[in-house]
Amino acid sequence: MCQLLGMNANTPTDVMFSFTGLATRADEHKDGFGIGFFEGRGARLFVDAQSARVSPVAELVKTWPIHSNNVIAHIRKATQGQVAPENTHPFARELWGRTWVFAHNGDLKDFRPRLHGSFRPVGDTDSEHAFCWLMQELAKAHAGVPAVAELSCTLRELLPQLHRHGTFNMLLSNGQALWAHGSTKLHWLLRQHPFRSAALRDEDLQVNFARHTTPEDRVAIIATEPLTADEAWAAFAPGELKVFVDGVPAG
Amino acid sequence: MCQLLGMNANTPTDVMFSFTGLATRADEHKDGFGIGFFEGRGARLFVDAQSARVSPVAELVKTWPIHSNNVIAHIRKATQGQVAPENTHPFARELWGRTWVFAHNGDLKDFRPRLHGSFRPVGDTDSEHAFCWLMQELAKAHAGVPAVAELSCTLRELLPQLHRHGTFNMLLSNGQALWAHGSTKLHWLLRQHPFRSAALRDEDLQVNFARHTTPEDRVAIIATEPLTADEAWAAFAPGELKVFVDGVPAG
Repeated sequence: MCQLLGMNANTPTDVMFSFTGLATRADEHKDGFGIGFFEGRGARLFVDAQSARVSPVAELVKTWPIHSNNVIAHIRKATQGQVAPENTHPFARELWGRTWVFAHNGDLKDFRPRLHGSFRPVGDTDSEHAFCWLMQELAKAHAGVPAVAELSCTLRELLPQLHRHGTFNMLLSNGQALWAHGSTKLHWLLRQHPFRSAALRDEDLQVNFARHTTPEDRVAIIATEPLTADEAWAAFAPGELKVFVDGVPAG
Repeated sequence: MCQLLGMNANTPTDVMFSFTGLATRADEHKDGFGIGFFEGRGARLFVDAQSARVSPVAELVKTWPIHSNNVIAHIRKATQGQVAPENTHPFARELWGRTWVFAHNGDLKDFRPRLHGSFRPVGDTDSEHAFCWLMQELAKAHAGVPAVAELSCTLRELLPQLHRHGTFNMLLSNGQALWAHGSTKLHWLLRQHPFRSAALRDEDLQVNFARHTTPEDRVAIIATEPLTADEAWAAFAPGELKVFVDGVPAG
């Protein structure tokens, strides 16, 4: 199983602490890692087919404070597709003049829906195929970029069609919102005023968020497994879709 | 004016030397830089809205030997569009299950052709608009990814339609070939057996390519201005399109 990490915040926020927690788990997830983050409309992807434990790209991400409202990261243990840059999550596509970033944890068995639209996989993973199908169906459902609530409605119709083919824990963002779909294993957490300290579960690292925040800051963190030992993480129900806007769950 | 750098090689080749030569010119080109490189079908983009002189991403690219057959790099001096990640070259889109990477040097005046296909700009530069139009027209001209020679034919029809709106020096690659279009300023060079030394024009750095190559290696370098002082660079004629495959100009 791969590991996912998502962050949605109401102010550009440093994801270094959580990414370090994720990268620590890269020992069993040696088949690459990637992180995509939005700065306004712009999305940047840093991916490497090397493990996040040794990758110089991961080192850059851990030491260089990236501030973003929406982040999607993934460390990979290959189930389908060889270890290559084109098979490394997150994947990105443009639709309606917005960049969409997607990462998947799970395994879709015998799922190759027909792609008749403008989105084709570059690599050979089930995940990128599913992402292309999602983009194709979103493009058919709306003429231009719709409101977040409308997109959530469409996703609530589409995601069960993927989920019934296998495990489909997923993170998706277009820079305005972050959608998270739980299948077998996904957790989430809100950090907001009053902020306190948190310690990573797998690494000797502690951050006092009160020192780095203002009372208005709100951050939602979504991760395969809880990253911290001393915060109240909630588990997604199987098939549950949550959408996060400005650091809180939206309608 | 921005500065372009392209590399096309018949074996995965280190672009560090040439990129260092490009980054040296970043003093007047402080509005970001980017580099896209193919590893097989996979393309990775490293972009930063900071100058290549100070960017930690540029430092990573300069020190970490990236081996690639097709590279497109760009340092930016903004003429249209604010300094932001979504306006930083190179741009990338997927078409026919291939990633396409594009960078432009120049300025297209009052050029906003109608985009009725699947490609829309995320940022607000003339360059990304032109790239979306190119992708749209390629998608209309071919049902799937055609042979390189056919793509070159189509591009020979399309590029003059962009060029007549202003300066259009351009690099484009899909990982199989690299297309370079000269407008006002673009130079190219072949490095092949017998390899010799070359010294960067703007930096005290010399490389003896004979030490790092085999007699079969072939590399084409394309750059706005010649990067080395002691090699025979050729200038593109205005409106000239060249396509490079496996390190040499193709038909």
